[in-house]
Amino acid sequence: MAVYTEVSDEELMAFVSGYGIGEVLSCKGIAEGVENSNYLLTTEQGAFILTLYEKRVDPGDLPFFLGLMAHLAAKGIPCPTPLTDGQGRSLNTLCGRPAAIISFLDGMWPRRIVPDHCAGLGAAMAQLHLAGADFALSRPNALSVMSWRPLLNAAGERADEVMPGLTALLSSELDELEARWPAGGALPSGVIHADLFPDNVFFRAGKLSGLIDFYFACNDIFAYDLAICLNAWCFEPDNSFNVTKARRMLTAYRKVREFSDDELAALPLLARGSAMRFLLTRLYDWLNTPSDAMVTRKDPLEYLEKLRFHQGIKSPASYGLE
Amino acid sequence: MAVYTEVSDEELMAFVSGYGIGEVLSCKGIAEGVENSNYLLTTEQGAFILTLYEKRVDPGDLPFFLGLMAHLAAKGIPCPTPLTDGQGRSLNTLCGRPAAIISFLDGMWPRRIVPDHCAGLGAAMAQLHLAGADFALSRPNALSVMSWRPLLNAAGERADEVMPGLTALLSSELDELEARWPAGGALPSGVIHADLFPDNVFFRAGKLSGLIDFYFACNDIFAYDLAICLNAWCFEPDNSFNVTKARRMLTAYRKVREFSDDELAALPLLARGSAMRFLLTRLYDWLNTPSDAMVTRKDPLEYLEKLRFHQGIKSPASYGLE
Repeated sequence: MAVYTEVSDEELMAFVSGYGIGEVLSCKGIAEGVENSNYLLTTEQGAFILTLYEKRVDPGDLPFFLGLMAHLAAKGIPCPTPLTDGQGRSLNTLCGRPAAIISFLDGMWPRRIVPDHCAGLGAAMAQLHLAGADFALSRPNALSVMSWRPLLNAAGERADEVMPGLTALLSSELDELEARWPAGGALPSGVIHADLFPDNVFFRAGKLSGLIDFYFACNDIFAYDLAICLNAWCFEPDNSFNVTKARRMLTAYRKVREFSDDELAALPLLARGSAMRFLLTRLYDWLNTPSDAMVTRKDPLEYLEKLRFHQGIKSPASYGLE
Repeated sequence: MAVYTEVSDEELMAFVSGYGIGEVLSCKGIAEGVENSNYLLTTEQGAFILTLYEKRVDPGDLPFFLGLMAHLAAKGIPCPTPLTDGQGRSLNTLCGRPAAIISFLDGMWPRRIVPDHCAGLGAAMAQLHLAGADFALSRPNALSVMSWRPLLNAAGERADEVMPGLTALLSSELDELEARWPAGGALPSGVIHADLFPDNVFFRAGKLSGLIDFYFACNDIFAYDLAICLNAWCFEPDNSFNVTKARRMLTAYRKVREFSDDELAALPLLARGSAMRFLLTRLYDWLNTPSDAMVTRKDPLEYLEKLRFHQGIKSPASYGLE
């Protein structure tokens, strides 16, 4: 949760007036998203999300993110659409920061995951993968396998403050991931969301109604997006793996986009990599977030348990598939 | 800013269904209010505020707060109205906490105060004081003069960590405030808001459109409410006193509710008391808020400068009035 920038009423009115959505009725900082400042903006024309991009987002990536949302929304993916101003621009400046107004999506993210949620997610993810095929821009995944060693090195010996022996354990796992990670082109790839955690997926009356927060989207292996979701959706709060949820997710995905035996065989390794990626970024944040910051630090070791589960997988059958 | 309680979708749907406002479309935690968890709830019937009362609010006070909002709204004061469920109750339970749904008010609180804001505030405050006259319940001000010595004692020697000599300075000021504070009945009294800071006052197109956050409302001296607002609205960011803002506020108030020479003469003392009250609660929070809490601690010493200004006042003319 975060609202980092205080927007004055005068600046806000001037900014919004360019979009032709009527008078501002209210604007409230919302406790969602940790990278940017988000406001729920209501005008005479309804509800919108106003986002100010803070320094953790590279402004050079914003045309990719906003363009992707517009592209996917036009293809029927239930994702936010950036509004354009009178000059056709979706990206402008507010309080000295890049800023955009995007459409508001109904729905709530599920606090308690049930298998139906995972099925809805699997189908929507496959649709997203297909819909991104003809998107003109591309963006490499800045948080893929090549970034993990530098992240571990940045933590340095302090990683062992979190758990004795953690550095050696992760270094050894990294050796294997780096050696075995699929080469570019070896597996079907395209635009992936790369951060489809439950708080980025809205449901309404049990049906998926929205995918939000495309600020990690990139070009990478499709099955890696699934691997991220296996970790984010299919473990119970006690870190036991719920194979029913995994099966529902994967089965629903395959009904929309069939995946090959190679992709299936790669899933355990991709899931280890995904666990490593979130473990390392959480570790970095854990060690570098001032303890008085207005964000809740997430426990990196939750992902160590997930990593260990995938290390023990003998075949994809453990994910509920043949 | 705070969202303390995570509400599950199932619990939320069940709770909202009692109010007959249609299906829940979204529910987002908002970064406003430090005492309670607040959500912007949208349903098929529009936007509402859902509030869960956390432990800093005494549940025994909630009938006063919610009843007062309903009373004032019925009299035309632009304040939130609590919704009632099928059984006529405005107060229910959600996630084990007292909870209420109140109406949503358009408008934004002013980030940059101009004299017109102060005039609008003065008139609305006087209307509020008149409208509360026939409210049936009453609630003593738990943060009036008798509470200040215990608050200072609770800080103890640690007050001097904030500024050397602070304890002695405040103790001496308290001696005078306790000796000179107006006796009950000495000045016109009734229901006051007691926390009309800028973030609790909404404006739309320059006109006051809402007064919110009645969770410090109580029965006390009317002019004390004005004294709180002199401190909260009429000092510039550099702590210089803007007499134009004060004059506009007081003049607008008096056009709606005339106040006596006694009230006018008491203003400097009441303003010192108000400065003491906010200095002490900020000091308490400063010393007792865990540094990793998701709230921004406010500087107690801002109120020391305001206190000193009022100590130097020779007559109410310094507030811009004769």
